[in-house]
Amino acid sequence: MSVDVVVIGAGSAGASACFAARKQDRKANIVCINKEPYPTYSRCALPFVIGGEIDSFKTTTVFEASFFEKQNIELLLDTEIISVNIKEQYVQTSERKIEFKSLVIATGGKGRLPDIPGIENEGVFVLRTRDHGDAILKRSAKGKKAIINGASFIALEVAEALKHRGMDVSCVIRSRALRSMVDNQFSIMIEEKLEENGITVLKGAPVTEITGDGTVSHVIVNGEQIPADMVIISTGTEPDVCLARDMGLDIGQTGGIKVNEQLETSASNIFAAGDCVESQCFIRKQPFISGLGTIAARQGMVAGANAAGAKLSSPLVLNASIMKLFDIEIGAVGLTEDIAKNAGFDIAVGGVKYPDKPHYYPGGKDVYVRLLAHKEDGRIIGAQVIAKEGVAARVNMLSLAIQNRMTARELQMADFCYSPPCSDTWAPEAIAATGLAKRLERKK
Amino acid sequence: MSVDVVVIGAGSAGASACFAARKQDRKANIVCINKEPYPTYSRCALPFVIGGEIDSFKTTTVFEASFFEKQNIELLLDTEIISVNIKEQYVQTSERKIEFKSLVIATGGKGRLPDIPGIENEGVFVLRTRDHGDAILKRSAKGKKAIINGASFIALEVAEALKHRGMDVSCVIRSRALRSMVDNQFSIMIEEKLEENGITVLKGAPVTEITGDGTVSHVIVNGEQIPADMVIISTGTEPDVCLARDMGLDIGQTGGIKVNEQLETSASNIFAAGDCVESQCFIRKQPFISGLGTIAARQGMVAGANAAGAKLSSPLVLNASIMKLFDIEIGAVGLTEDIAKNAGFDIAVGGVKYPDKPHYYPGGKDVYVRLLAHKEDGRIIGAQVIAKEGVAARVNMLSLAIQNRMTARELQMADFCYSPPCSDTWAPEAIAATGLAKRLERKK
Repeated sequence: MSVDVVVIGAGSAGASACFAARKQDRKANIVCINKEPYPTYSRCALPFVIGGEIDSFKTTTVFEASFFEKQNIELLLDTEIISVNIKEQYVQTSERKIEFKSLVIATGGKGRLPDIPGIENEGVFVLRTRDHGDAILKRSAKGKKAIINGASFIALEVAEALKHRGMDVSCVIRSRALRSMVDNQFSIMIEEKLEENGITVLKGAPVTEITGDGTVSHVIVNGEQIPADMVIISTGTEPDVCLARDMGLDIGQTGGIKVNEQLETSASNIFAAGDCVESQCFIRKQPFISGLGTIAARQGMVAGANAAGAKLSSPLVLNASIMKLFDIEIGAVGLTEDIAKNAGFDIAVGGVKYPDKPHYYPGGKDVYVRLLAHKEDGRIIGAQVIAKEGVAARVNMLSLAIQNRMTARELQMADFCYSPPCSDTWAPEAIAATGLAKRLERKK
Repeated sequence: MSVDVVVIGAGSAGASACFAARKQDRKANIVCINKEPYPTYSRCALPFVIGGEIDSFKTTTVFEASFFEKQNIELLLDTEIISVNIKEQYVQTSERKIEFKSLVIATGGKGRLPDIPGIENEGVFVLRTRDHGDAILKRSAKGKKAIINGASFIALEVAEALKHRGMDVSCVIRSRALRSMVDNQFSIMIEEKLEENGITVLKGAPVTEITGDGTVSHVIVNGEQIPADMVIISTGTEPDVCLARDMGLDIGQTGGIKVNEQLETSASNIFAAGDCVESQCFIRKQPFISGLGTIAARQGMVAGANAAGAKLSSPLVLNASIMKLFDIEIGAVGLTEDIAKNAGFDIAVGGVKYPDKPHYYPGGKDVYVRLLAHKEDGRIIGAQVIAKEGVAARVNMLSLAIQNRMTARELQMADFCYSPPCSDTWAPEAIAATGLAKRLERKK
């Protein structure tokens, strides 16, 4: 049997690719092959099942198998791919040979495991799949002490989740919290928030060894032995390119599959999307690994439509992201100071703490905003926000400011709304932009 | 004594003009003349003093007299202007003759009173100043029945405020609630919200007469007599151009003072800003009356700086606005359907009700979004949002989308953030944009 579009993976990118292919071509034969036994679920929701906010792993389902069926997409679950033959255009699974006209690779990412002694002990986890989540949740009921190695947002979410489950939680943070997303000043606030909520923050060194007789009993951090009933390794994810590499597709220096603007790989009619590909940074115009579900969904749409005959371009990526940590939300978009400086940009930074309501109206809560701009042209290239609530829309707004190449002065003068119970005459973002614009002009 | 900059008015525009003039020229002599006996306060906050959320009218002060003093700006309160001599460049107050080099007129707006019998009765109010607010609050303690004539956002805020004070409140709405800000579907939701909170909505006719023997006792609506202890007239504001007219400055067809891009009036070195001027609509490229404090503040900055020697341009106006009504927030930016159609635009509309969190995370609240786009090029020209909270940042985001001339498809694919406790993979605005983009493409 020959099908029109085969999609490998039913995660955010894979599922989006399937539905976009269907929209593009109502009659196409579409097959989706998924390694996991579950239809599309939200990976980002897994920490909240561990923490108890979401009642079960099944609840994280985003698209049921029946939804694929309704769209007339054949969904093969729990199915391993043995090989893909590019020349003869077929996928070989353990059960079937499926010939295709075009292919979308959406094999996602995988947790990066550090090469340290004892990593193979029972009780050491990464969190990437429902099964991982399930194992972590079960383990949390058996032990008391959890060590989180890393300070990515998944690491911090799991730290909070295990704290909610009553564990003693320590975060081992080599450099600083959420480093890839926020600047140092915000990292400090985040680390303080962890400690304020009873999580121990161990800074300056990673876990260098895990000890135990088959089951973890301690970790070694900075030469010190720390008791541990479980260890979560969350030192970053990497693109899962095993299959792509076997197929002989070009892999970029970032470790992700190389794709062009239409998300086509080095082989024609073979597309790739999501955590397994290189994204193009909007600001640096360089490839990087996004790792976000939102980007995966957007790329999946483009790759799926193109696999079914469209010619869409995938937008450059700003990586707008957000997380909740106890009673605050942390959001960011564009470059951090570190990343901007590493990219050789000459930047200025503006930051404010400003209430979300005017001072004369009760109940205002502080919003922390940081903005980064190019010194040369004043254009904003990065933004970070911390507040108790409502950060998502603020980050989205700042994402549009960056995408539209607005300067700090333009953002200051933007037409923003005001009413005492809702927002001040000048929103916190406009206030931050004002300070930044002043700084930029002074430096000229 | 000759001063460099005289500013008439210490409201949002006037105060901003003073401080911007000071920033522009550290040594300029600046005098601010205010008719009211109070330094700068928030007019938008007045309904919330009446409602009890803010404890006193004094609390609504935005800039104290001492703040003017610190900036070395002479503030004359409770001071009437008798005349302005443009040729000889002086302002004559009841006490002094003040020669100026440049002048900023920020005389604001005034409540429009309908020409109906009985309007002069005691107990009939507009709400524009602190003294008005004070009089309304005092009156509310003496009577039981309040009639609100009009459905502007001030009308609705006062309706809620008087309800909080325990009055029986009826809104007399000739056409539909908040018509200048939102489309019919949202007006219906707003009217339902009023009724749900025990406010009587009388639709289809205005108050045509007020009866009483010196003090209001009834209003006549649609031939029917309705008891009233007080009446709030809120059928719109108009620019206060008495002084400008006396000075012989050009007044536009909208009734506002004509100004150029630098906010200079028809007389050189005389600038005007805020509710007394015509603003230029970003989308229609036509003059209109904005009436918003945010726009007044932005224009004041430009006029004040220019009066002190700068050459800034005032941005075109999108009129982003927001209000809170009981437990919902209502925001809008750009054109409504009515206004767009009246302007001769061929438009398409997309609307959704979509939760602010994904379905698998508990506690999501519905966000209602309406988007309007030009059929020809797909660019978004209007947006409206209703939700329980967080509407301000959503409106600001949509304001940037319009300002940057984004199409529905571009907004759909924008780089927005996601995390289960904060926002779904596709924000409500992106979902609305998706539907709108589809509709636009189908119509081609």
